[in-house]
Amino acid sequence: MASEFSPAGIYVPAFEIEHRLQGIQDMMVQDGFEGALLFQNLDRFYFSGTMQPGVLFLQPQEEPILFIRKNIDRAREESSLEKIVPLTSLRDLPATLLEMDLPLPQNLGLELDILPAQTYLQIETLFPAVRLLDLSIQLRRCRMIKSSWEIENLRKAARMTAELVQAMPSLLKPSLTELELAGRLESFLRHRGHQGFIRTRGFNQEVFYGHILSGTEGARASYIDSPSGGLGTGPAFSQGAGFKVLRPHEPISIDYCGCFNGYIVDQTRMFSLGDPPAAVLEAYQAMLEVQESIKRRTYPGITGEQVYHWALETATRLGYRDYFMGSGATRAAYVGHGVGLELDELPLLAPKFNWTLLENMVFAFEPKVILPGVGLIGIENTFLLTQQGLEPLTTAPEKFQVL
Amino acid sequence: MASEFSPAGIYVPAFEIEHRLQGIQDMMVQDGFEGALLFQNLDRFYFSGTMQPGVLFLQPQEEPILFIRKNIDRAREESSLEKIVPLTSLRDLPATLLEMDLPLPQNLGLELDILPAQTYLQIETLFPAVRLLDLSIQLRRCRMIKSSWEIENLRKAARMTAELVQAMPSLLKPSLTELELAGRLESFLRHRGHQGFIRTRGFNQEVFYGHILSGTEGARASYIDSPSGGLGTGPAFSQGAGFKVLRPHEPISIDYCGCFNGYIVDQTRMFSLGDPPAAVLEAYQAMLEVQESIKRRTYPGITGEQVYHWALETATRLGYRDYFMGSGATRAAYVGHGVGLELDELPLLAPKFNWTLLENMVFAFEPKVILPGVGLIGIENTFLLTQQGLEPLTTAPEKFQVL
Repeated sequence: MASEFSPAGIYVPAFEIEHRLQGIQDMMVQDGFEGALLFQNLDRFYFSGTMQPGVLFLQPQEEPILFIRKNIDRAREESSLEKIVPLTSLRDLPATLLEMDLPLPQNLGLELDILPAQTYLQIETLFPAVRLLDLSIQLRRCRMIKSSWEIENLRKAARMTAELVQAMPSLLKPSLTELELAGRLESFLRHRGHQGFIRTRGFNQEVFYGHILSGTEGARASYIDSPSGGLGTGPAFSQGAGFKVLRPHEPISIDYCGCFNGYIVDQTRMFSLGDPPAAVLEAYQAMLEVQESIKRRTYPGITGEQVYHWALETATRLGYRDYFMGSGATRAAYVGHGVGLELDELPLLAPKFNWTLLENMVFAFEPKVILPGVGLIGIENTFLLTQQGLEPLTTAPEKFQVL
Repeated sequence: MASEFSPAGIYVPAFEIEHRLQGIQDMMVQDGFEGALLFQNLDRFYFSGTMQPGVLFLQPQEEPILFIRKNIDRAREESSLEKIVPLTSLRDLPATLLEMDLPLPQNLGLELDILPAQTYLQIETLFPAVRLLDLSIQLRRCRMIKSSWEIENLRKAARMTAELVQAMPSLLKPSLTELELAGRLESFLRHRGHQGFIRTRGFNQEVFYGHILSGTEGARASYIDSPSGGLGTGPAFSQGAGFKVLRPHEPISIDYCGCFNGYIVDQTRMFSLGDPPAAVLEAYQAMLEVQESIKRRTYPGITGEQVYHWALETATRLGYRDYFMGSGATRAAYVGHGVGLELDELPLLAPKFNWTLLENMVFAFEPKVILPGVGLIGIENTFLLTQQGLEPLTTAPEKFQVL
């Protein structure tokens, strides 16, 4: 039941939830999980349609039970699950399960990649006879394949970033600081329904929309695992836009996420105020060529590792090996990453990631290079993998815009 | 060594780091910790001045050692610590400590409140003979008392929010959606150096600037632990500003964080387009009176619990008990919270929080009430506790602005 102020189709449909549950339950059967408790906002949301606080109890063959700590009415509005029951405190969970005539499982899957140690230790105490196992890879595998409903949401997110690129001539002006430009872009995106908050799963991965970076300073590596870095606002947030004024002729990269209804797309486009040095345009052309070389060869059945090596190979052939994706210890460990409800989903396009890429995976591919003394140059698009190959969801023109 | 684009004084001074280290080392001695490993961006930053990725090793009597996984040059620029050494992987840490002639401690303090279970279990394997203890309360206690340098940063953050309130007549216009207004406000703040990203420590606590809420829909409780909620952009981010259009005469509450150099202040002010119903102004007057009753009585030496009860008592006397800070299961469990580098610092102004409030603590106090069928009404300021009582850091006029 949506409010008059909710865009149509914004609630997660029941068929979507059923399909997702089927997916994780199949994996639970296959990998021998007898039960699972999901705590993270997003994991609960993915399988229930609501983020209201509580715990989601999954079993391989039974209906899930959503325990809600507060706001049960809103949970019932948002979620199509049948069994939504109140729970005052996690401490009551073992007793509540017994009261509901549910046998305690022999083992419990948990989100060990993001669950705080304190909560883990508390569950260990509450369920002393139960073996605690890591379900995080299964959860991330489920989310890796996108449904048509999800792809529709991703397209809406991509529309925002396409409009943004189109509006850049009126937004990007001389004498702005990176931060001032950031404010203009972010306001533009909020106007179009961007939720602002960009979710990441990785511990210590902090993201705010993405990065606006200009000139040499924009090429500095930061504390997050990304090919781009920048000065940021200071050592307390040393990434992305900072107090630096945009200078004529320097490369300006805008790596910003669109986000609609929770779904994120990642896109980078290049700009400058007045003609950039020829080396910038050459490097940009090379990164486009890296992208083309990947687009030609990427079909369901190849691995993330292959894509990484092809990209590195092409960048090397074009003379950009040493600074491709950063340099030395600060080189990013990938050329692409899954996107969806979180910015750091699977698959990875990275060394040793030998999973097979499958139809309906969605990932950002971002070949980028640092030109020492000049700046960061690159392109990024979010692609849907189809039987016909890579279909770009982010469809903004790729021309280097000189304003 | 700051860049030409860093505002002066933005790097954490050496004396500040020394003072902080003294504080945690004293607690480690007192509570019997022989060593500690800090992983979280912010905890490492607080004691080193840099957020570059790695692990900070603390001992009660020795200089700390900052192990850096990448970007050691930037870490050395930002941090005044002497011992900054490279570390390729956490797996190498036990061997590296031995090589450095450091005896393995008998026990290790960890951030068990936020450390992912996987990392905890990995440390357990790496240090099988070492007892792992929770250092999180000590870490949060350290941060609770602010230095003059920190208070200076908080004042700069507060200046942003004061300017924002002053600019509201030109920003808040009829027919805007909450999201469009949000974009305008956020752009205004970015212009003044706001880093955008607001850190929270609590698992699943997600915050984006704060909340812009209007009318009845704005009074809906959300999934985060806060008296305010709102529709948000949909079930995937069901808090704060949404697609709702601002209507004449309804209460509009703007609960937004200022943030400078990592330091956060929290402030709420009330607005309407055209005169609001008399009940709104009466409720607002009552919340101001709750604030006054607290300002009169809060001095170093009382407890957070006392402040909570005084606030509830005054709200009750004024006839607002049932919907003060929300209602029923969705009532927020506090009337105030510490702020600093994270939005959810200590102390709490909450039942059972019987810690003594001390000089130089900084906290937000936010008496708020829901008027059923009307909206959310309240005030919030960030206060510095001094020997003379509460000094507001957020100094914007408190008048209910009818625009």
